[in-house]
Amino acid sequence: MNKKYADDSLTLHTDLYQINMAETYWEDNIHNKRAVFEVFFRKLPFGNGYAVFAGLERIIDYLKNFTFTTTDIDYLRDELGYKEDYLEYLEQVKFTGNVRSMVEGELVFANEPIIRIEAPLAEAQLIETAILNIVNYQTLIATKASRIKQVVGEERVMEFGTRRAQEMDAAIWGTRAAFIGGFEATSNVRAGKRFGIPVAGTHAHALVQTYRDEYTAFHKYAQRHKDCVFLVDTYDTLRSGVPTAIKVAKELGNKINFQGIRLDSGDLAYLSKEARKMLDEAGFTDTKIIASNDLDENTIINLKAQGAKIDSWGIGTKLITAYDQPALGAVYKLVSIEDEQGKMVDTIKISGNPEKVTTPGLKKVYRIINTHNNKSEGDYIALENEMPQEESRLKMFHPVHTFISKFVTNFKAKELHQDIFIEGNVVYETPTLKEIQLFAKENLEVLWDEYKRTMHPEEYPVDLSQACWDNKMKNIQDVQAKVLSLIGEGEPHNG
Amino acid sequence: MNKKYADDSLTLHTDLYQINMAETYWEDNIHNKRAVFEVFFRKLPFGNGYAVFAGLERIIDYLKNFTFTTTDIDYLRDELGYKEDYLEYLEQVKFTGNVRSMVEGELVFANEPIIRIEAPLAEAQLIETAILNIVNYQTLIATKASRIKQVVGEERVMEFGTRRAQEMDAAIWGTRAAFIGGFEATSNVRAGKRFGIPVAGTHAHALVQTYRDEYTAFHKYAQRHKDCVFLVDTYDTLRSGVPTAIKVAKELGNKINFQGIRLDSGDLAYLSKEARKMLDEAGFTDTKIIASNDLDENTIINLKAQGAKIDSWGIGTKLITAYDQPALGAVYKLVSIEDEQGKMVDTIKISGNPEKVTTPGLKKVYRIINTHNNKSEGDYIALENEMPQEESRLKMFHPVHTFISKFVTNFKAKELHQDIFIEGNVVYETPTLKEIQLFAKENLEVLWDEYKRTMHPEEYPVDLSQACWDNKMKNIQDVQAKVLSLIGEGEPHNG
Repeated sequence: MNKKYADDSLTLHTDLYQINMAETYWEDNIHNKRAVFEVFFRKLPFGNGYAVFAGLERIIDYLKNFTFTTTDIDYLRDELGYKEDYLEYLEQVKFTGNVRSMVEGELVFANEPIIRIEAPLAEAQLIETAILNIVNYQTLIATKASRIKQVVGEERVMEFGTRRAQEMDAAIWGTRAAFIGGFEATSNVRAGKRFGIPVAGTHAHALVQTYRDEYTAFHKYAQRHKDCVFLVDTYDTLRSGVPTAIKVAKELGNKINFQGIRLDSGDLAYLSKEARKMLDEAGFTDTKIIASNDLDENTIINLKAQGAKIDSWGIGTKLITAYDQPALGAVYKLVSIEDEQGKMVDTIKISGNPEKVTTPGLKKVYRIINTHNNKSEGDYIALENEMPQEESRLKMFHPVHTFISKFVTNFKAKELHQDIFIEGNVVYETPTLKEIQLFAKENLEVLWDEYKRTMHPEEYPVDLSQACWDNKMKNIQDVQAKVLSLIGEGEPHNG
Repeated sequence: MNKKYADDSLTLHTDLYQINMAETYWEDNIHNKRAVFEVFFRKLPFGNGYAVFAGLERIIDYLKNFTFTTTDIDYLRDELGYKEDYLEYLEQVKFTGNVRSMVEGELVFANEPIIRIEAPLAEAQLIETAILNIVNYQTLIATKASRIKQVVGEERVMEFGTRRAQEMDAAIWGTRAAFIGGFEATSNVRAGKRFGIPVAGTHAHALVQTYRDEYTAFHKYAQRHKDCVFLVDTYDTLRSGVPTAIKVAKELGNKINFQGIRLDSGDLAYLSKEARKMLDEAGFTDTKIIASNDLDENTIINLKAQGAKIDSWGIGTKLITAYDQPALGAVYKLVSIEDEQGKMVDTIKISGNPEKVTTPGLKKVYRIINTHNNKSEGDYIALENEMPQEESRLKMFHPVHTFISKFVTNFKAKELHQDIFIEGNVVYETPTLKEIQLFAKENLEVLWDEYKRTMHPEEYPVDLSQACWDNKMKNIQDVQAKVLSLIGEGEPHNG
């Protein structure tokens, strides 16, 4: 820690260019123009068919506390050379905008606005980096956890990844996101305290090493811990660990509640089947076998295919770091801004990559749920003033391959955004974490199974309304015409 | 945040089983036995030839502040059911042990003790998880950064990854680790304030979108920011962005210091070469071209091979998440413990995987540096009481293929551990971050280039002393005999 600046605030948790751009806006006196930014990602992670949104609680807390401290201002002045007039502006900045957002546990797909920030331009710019940082990680982990939970099914799955997490915030916010995605417990005690997540854990190899044999270690452990799970792979799982666990459990009888054993190495399919037999033969048919060791949805599918007898799964590195895809690419794009006359006008970002062209305008997202079977027909992005919920027959068409279309009747249109902040004040009451987990689970029930396969799922439809599509095309044409006039020749390209 | 427990301490940032094991030790009155644990990893990340240790500053801070708060104790009692007698013990626990450790910026290799904790057993157990969490992430990123810096060479390289980092701690501790690994700057302002890292950044596409054309945006930006770097890829890099940047720079002349342009999309090799020509032809031969967009050491090698004219590199996602290997597997293993008679005895963890067998005993690590050429001959792990620095001729042999050996004369043996804590008090003065960066750079100069290739480097020798090797073999035999007697048959295996 830099001795000179004793405190640390998250308000500086931003990229320098945000502070530079806000300065230009302030200098030009357009910093208080209304601007609308949307957060979305372009590609689902892990090849999954859906993502589970997480991060809103942290974002609310961040925005509520958004203020430059005295030492933040000192640093900007003394080390980075910002001038006093601009610093006076920064000193009094708070977040005064509106936030409409999906809520945590909502299912989200590519190119859907997850969060919509409508705020004075400079404020909206300053908060971009932190919001993306939060959404990207927490949504990534909630999604990874949900994939794993899909494969695990009704069995218990626990987060064990703290030691391999990417620093401390990842450990605790990651385990919170994992809980939203369907995990039942964590080994991280701090996350238990902060978020009320059930914590789980028994003992490690170090206990056996300390006592130098399993028999003594299990006995000592059981003196204080009546709900006993013994770790059986310190020396030799089937010839030493499991028999010793059984022996100790028999000797202690009713003095303990012998819950089961934990396997943390070796061939988990073979070992769990053999251990199950040994436990059953000894009469411990109610005991559970807990497995861990570099597990993820793929190893779990394989272990299950081989008939592994595992009742409870501990997932570490592969979950908490999202090992196979450790970043989600959510972006934050300007879609509308107040013009010189105070009127909101749409903006668009053009790119040589068609998938990078943004969709302009203030929008709402609806999940179109068939009222006959309560399954979703797809999501529908409409302009702010449209009312799809009042239509009896909705045309849905693919936003790229527009000839792919269908008409939907007998539907309800569930709006996915809720008001979170209005003029800088929180108007949303955060549910309990358990409620969020349940909400995510209920949302999954609305999806056909084909969208939930962990490998090569069907692509879930995310369609634009006709008005939204027309508006996008018009904006593209306007910008193309403008760029053509600026460069004075040919067709624009990028790259 | 759980309303019930208002504060948050890092002391609970541990796995539940650590608190359970400490309870067993306390119950059995062996919690104050001296125990020695070592932190090491078994495999270098990214196929790199070395790792750069980072994380010590954060560990020192964590251990200095290690204390269960009142609400920590309340949580353990009220929610997890720990009993008052044990809680009374926890309530007064502080870290009272000794820490010897490599210092940040030191080069470290597989199977070398990075940190050695010698402390009362329960204390040493409670701190395991947080220490691994810190070492694993920060060392991973310092190493990734060093790989990238090896490829970049003397050009400038900057950390731009906050929005894709795995939550906030990763963003700031990751950028600190990147600086240790050789990065020159970061976009994260908070990291700049906390750690004194130079911050860098210009403007984003949003500025151009706001003003709706590059000409106006660049002019507006330049009013306040005299050291101008213009982002030129919002519409069309070569036909709009670069010509407009040149036009604005010419118009403003001496009013600004036109530093260069930034490219953030498209084919960076082609665009940078063309942009360089355009800038040079316009007389701006001193300007720099800054590039970013999903870069890592592999893309940089390729861009350089194609003659890209890039002067400064901005690295985001691939660095800050260690994208190609997002976790380091450092472990924390008991190597020695006080026996019933108060004598320290070695411990070993046996495994069916030979590379998972630990090396018992209190050890020191030396870098054996040839005094003729100032290059390292390898690292040498010796028992605590050995004095390799006093020998004139040192036998070094491969710890697995023991027939591979060499004798070294004319060497100095640099001991890599330093005292950090003695009896719970910090005795180490943390250098400045700049000094740590320089230290890492100097350490790299002692390595032959063959160990520094980013692809298929030579394996750097990490050898055990004869005494250390003999001690390990003796311990293995002792445990094997003991396990054999316990299970009463055949050879032990695991799995």
